[in-house]
Amino acid sequence: MADSRKRPAGRFAYEGLQRVFHEKARLGILASLMTAPRGLVFNELKELCALTDGNLSRHIQVLSEAGFVEVLKGFEKRKPQTLYRMTDEGRDGFREYLDELERVVKDMARAPKNSPEGEGDLPSGWVTV
Amino acid sequence: MADSRKRPAGRFAYEGLQRVFHEKARLGILASLMTAPRGLVFNELKELCALTDGNLSRHIQVLSEAGFVEVLKGFEKRKPQTLYRMTDEGRDGFREYLDELERVVKDMARAPKNSPEGEGDLPSGWVTV
Repeated sequence: MADSRKRPAGRFAYEGLQRVFHEKARLGILASLMTAPRGLVFNELKELCALTDGNLSRHIQVLSEAGFVEVLKGFEKRKPQTLYRMTDEGRDGFREYLDELERVVKDMARAPKNSPEGEGDLPSGWVTV
Repeated sequence: MADSRKRPAGRFAYEGLQRVFHEKARLGILASLMTAPRGLVFNELKELCALTDGNLSRHIQVLSEAGFVEVLKGFEKRKPQTLYRMTDEGRDGFREYLDELERVVKDMARAPKNSPEGEGDLPSGWVTV
């Protein structure tokens, strides 16, 4: 179209939004853990992310198998607990993911804020399907 | 854990990351269209988002059925073309989604930047699984 400036192929592919981090529940789990370097126990994570036991377990398993979260066993107030922490690899990978997320936000901050004049009208010669 | 300040339940649930916008390919399609208010034709979108024909068609259909993208038929340089544009509803919804995305980025900008001292060590009383 007339108004599309020349932009390189893949300009909006956002390849850095890796699936393992981009999935909403995992994004929440990692965000929680980023703010708690010493780790969080299962119930804390569950509450912060508003996830069910099953969902949290499943996503933690994905993150743990990928080497991004480590699982520790211990006792707190005499009760057996499971503690989850980011690994260095997880922190580095997630930061790269966050850089790409920031790129999306910045790209969109540059996008036209308002509908252009007459945008509600069809461009001449075009019909809605 | 000792270092977890009290944060409200659901603090990292990011409910505003609606699936229809958050899916990576759709995010790219909408980002492209946000920067091109008069619309983009199929091949432009395909190139900008680095998607296959099949993937682009499938995701456009989801966005069109949700009322976020409109599909126009017409001719350009005598060839039949299909033009895609954001609807007002799409633009509003995607902006709300982007606000939540910005919240993620800001939350993480506040997260501790470096590993805390001795973080590589296990907290006493905890063992890796």
